[in-house]
Amino acid sequence: MANKEELVTIPARKGKAARVAKGGRVKVINTHGKQVIDTWAFNAADVREFMSMEHSRAHLLKVIPAVGDAMLTNHRRPILTIVEDTTPGIHDTLIAACDSHRYKMLGVHGYHESCTENLALAMREIGVEAPETPSPLNLFMNIPVAADGSLSFQAPVSSAGQYVTLRAEMDLIIVFSACPQDIIPVNDMMPTEAHFAIL
Amino acid sequence: MANKEELVTIPARKGKAARVAKGGRVKVINTHGKQVIDTWAFNAADVREFMSMEHSRAHLLKVIPAVGDAMLTNHRRPILTIVEDTTPGIHDTLIAACDSHRYKMLGVHGYHESCTENLALAMREIGVEAPETPSPLNLFMNIPVAADGSLSFQAPVSSAGQYVTLRAEMDLIIVFSACPQDIIPVNDMMPTEAHFAIL
Repeated sequence: MANKEELVTIPARKGKAARVAKGGRVKVINTHGKQVIDTWAFNAADVREFMSMEHSRAHLLKVIPAVGDAMLTNHRRPILTIVEDTTPGIHDTLIAACDSHRYKMLGVHGYHESCTENLALAMREIGVEAPETPSPLNLFMNIPVAADGSLSFQAPVSSAGQYVTLRAEMDLIIVFSACPQDIIPVNDMMPTEAHFAIL
Repeated sequence: MANKEELVTIPARKGKAARVAKGGRVKVINTHGKQVIDTWAFNAADVREFMSMEHSRAHLLKVIPAVGDAMLTNHRRPILTIVEDTTPGIHDTLIAACDSHRYKMLGVHGYHESCTENLALAMREIGVEAPETPSPLNLFMNIPVAADGSLSFQAPVSSAGQYVTLRAEMDLIIVFSACPQDIIPVNDMMPTEAHFAIL
């Protein structure tokens, strides 16, 4: 894992954005194993076009995308394809990025990092303004859908070093947030750093 | 159904917007029984706050909301509560509003109405610009989630005259679109008009 790939750190509780050319692959590594990575992708030529979970589900006809599946944008064009997944394949497309309102509801007083803020800050770091907060592809996030349609927040089932590789289907900006959620067990109660490499 | 309520028509394939004061109730009637009604709600004081399916699912911990459930905004505040439902309770929160790109993918040449366009036009009709196209609450839409997480587009299970009543939890703009989808069976292959009444 540490050979010729240039690993970029997604600091614990923080976000990171990068430009990826069409055809490029991005390996997202769950370095410590139990970290959820909220993931967004925006068309580099027009950020008002972006990866959309609700458009992807309508096309893929499944709740959780798997290897070979291309996520669609809000303009119904392929933007990211899952080309490799060494985890058990449990990810989430149903849950909004956490935000300051969420932490207030969970009883947090004062400031708490959030994936929504991380998206905005990470994009600003590369000089781009996020047009909105699309519903993210939550890599490694474990939200089982029960037979009666009920949902629960569970710890990830991935292990340290497991990864997902995504292929860019257009020139794009990818944004990752190492989810800072530490009130409910989506990150097994301990937000950690993670890494990615552009191949 | 036709007593003192003032029925407003949602024309077949078209949208309609209305202002509802906090505490007001909106009865949405599936007049002919098999029509999907894409539904949005925006905070009247600031339309950048709106009903969000991804925020609602995270709060309700279910895929399909039921009587007693309050949908949340992207600021995690209650905006619409389901207070009555005479249908079998099958609605959808997973699928994006249809748009011109969708119909192109389905092989339609030339113009086709869409819920995305209907949202924008209906809001413009009351003098407001939609800030984006939030993922809609698709009333009466039947998208079963199978045990393996796969989805399918099915005809509604509701019958003529059945309805859902929603209570406004803030001053809001509600927007309905009688989905014009006639290529796949979500409207039982025949888009029709529907009605609503503000109580």
